[in-house]
Amino acid sequence: MTYCVGIRLNAGLVFLSDSRTNAGLDAISTFRKMIIYEKPGDRFMVLLSAGNLSISQSVREILQVEKLPQPDGEPLTIWNAKSMFDATRVLGSAVRRVFEHDAAALHNAGVDFNANMIFGGQIKGEAMRLFHIYSAGNFIEATRETCFFQIGESKYGKPILDRVLTPTTPLEEAAKCALVSMDSTLKSNLSVGLPLDLLVYEEGKLRSDNIAVIDDQNPYFRMIRGTWGQRLREVFEAIDDPHWDGSDTTHPLLAPSERYEPMRKISRPDEKIV
Amino acid sequence: MTYCVGIRLNAGLVFLSDSRTNAGLDAISTFRKMIIYEKPGDRFMVLLSAGNLSISQSVREILQVEKLPQPDGEPLTIWNAKSMFDATRVLGSAVRRVFEHDAAALHNAGVDFNANMIFGGQIKGEAMRLFHIYSAGNFIEATRETCFFQIGESKYGKPILDRVLTPTTPLEEAAKCALVSMDSTLKSNLSVGLPLDLLVYEEGKLRSDNIAVIDDQNPYFRMIRGTWGQRLREVFEAIDDPHWDGSDTTHPLLAPSERYEPMRKISRPDEKIV
Repeated sequence: MTYCVGIRLNAGLVFLSDSRTNAGLDAISTFRKMIIYEKPGDRFMVLLSAGNLSISQSVREILQVEKLPQPDGEPLTIWNAKSMFDATRVLGSAVRRVFEHDAAALHNAGVDFNANMIFGGQIKGEAMRLFHIYSAGNFIEATRETCFFQIGESKYGKPILDRVLTPTTPLEEAAKCALVSMDSTLKSNLSVGLPLDLLVYEEGKLRSDNIAVIDDQNPYFRMIRGTWGQRLREVFEAIDDPHWDGSDTTHPLLAPSERYEPMRKISRPDEKIV
Repeated sequence: MTYCVGIRLNAGLVFLSDSRTNAGLDAISTFRKMIIYEKPGDRFMVLLSAGNLSISQSVREILQVEKLPQPDGEPLTIWNAKSMFDATRVLGSAVRRVFEHDAAALHNAGVDFNANMIFGGQIKGEAMRLFHIYSAGNFIEATRETCFFQIGESKYGKPILDRVLTPTTPLEEAAKCALVSMDSTLKSNLSVGLPLDLLVYEEGKLRSDNIAVIDDQNPYFRMIRGTWGQRLREVFEAIDDPHWDGSDTTHPLLAPSERYEPMRKISRPDEKIV
């Protein structure tokens, strides 16, 4: 499986991906899932991919040369697109090209055409944008209300993103949040694995900024892994336990329960469920 | 969907279930998923169910009267079983009886035979035990290493259980942990909903102990919902952000990255992916 997250903030973009690919539990390997497309000073784009590796590798290869015909003028490519929306349409077109080539054969082999991608960046003259692209080549864009996308094994790591991220979150704090989210995912799903690729892009730079490859020796990530779990436990312990004092009316847990039927309880063998 | 969790500790058992049932997003309703089987002083058992509601209701009905023939002597029922293992075999048999009756018709309608249950308790003369029962009527038992089971929408709420629960966790702390886990799940999955049924059983009591029905007015759960999210943010903010000082060797994030190939970066339109 895979876990990737892309975040769009007012201050910039954050991308984080794992690198585990597996075909069954006994066939795991390491493939990087982040790729950068950059023409410094003109455009900066990052692609994260999940799903069938043969599909995403093909899409990445084809995306380099994909041309989307235009009614008037030059065909669109990711290198001449004037907007991230147009660049993402080119990516969608590349996904559809791979579909045309492979989907029928995959279907015959009982394999779904499964590709999920996060694509974001900035083209000169436009604001930063972030997209989530589906297997059909269609896509949605991140907004102020929903400023991040996840692909792959997203559930374990979603609660912390939900609680922390807003468009005004500072870049480094968002990077930390993505790493905490990844830590929860790594703990619970064996098919997500190190090393990680982390990229933090500052608004308006139009070139790669801060990139790190993080493995289990990385001091910062080791600190996160140790500290987060421990602090979480401390916070948890600092919250009051529920108390059962046997009194229905003063009990904080039982107070409103009168409004509901009591739980069904069968206390004699011959008693019938009501 | 559903979220239920059952925990076996040295001190006792904790059960928590939501009550939302849905057939599509536009057809939600409230069904309790916890049922108690009790003969005070002799046996105390709790069943939590997830999956197709028609199946789990049928299983609950049949379980009352299910008899598992024995090579010698009286047929086994949940009321005469001498061990929780035997009682769980009776439950597995009830699941198989519903399968025989309904599975073919469900299959013809394109519906999977989907039932997942947590069953735990104590029978006089035996230690407390906790089981996870599958659609085929087979089951596994909780151990010291894995002291809890989840059914339904388990992923959002699993990290906190993983980090906190051990067999020596006190009962009330485990109840708090289950409620925090439920809170994360409620936040992320619309098909899990209030009210909740919480039951805390103290080892050796052989009767219902502390039971609460928790809705959105419950003061303790409101405190958990408010406090946990806020404290989580405080802890998160107290952890250092990563710093990018531009120096590869002193940088906590970049230190070990030399051992990996740099990320693939395409910086000219005509450059090829290596």
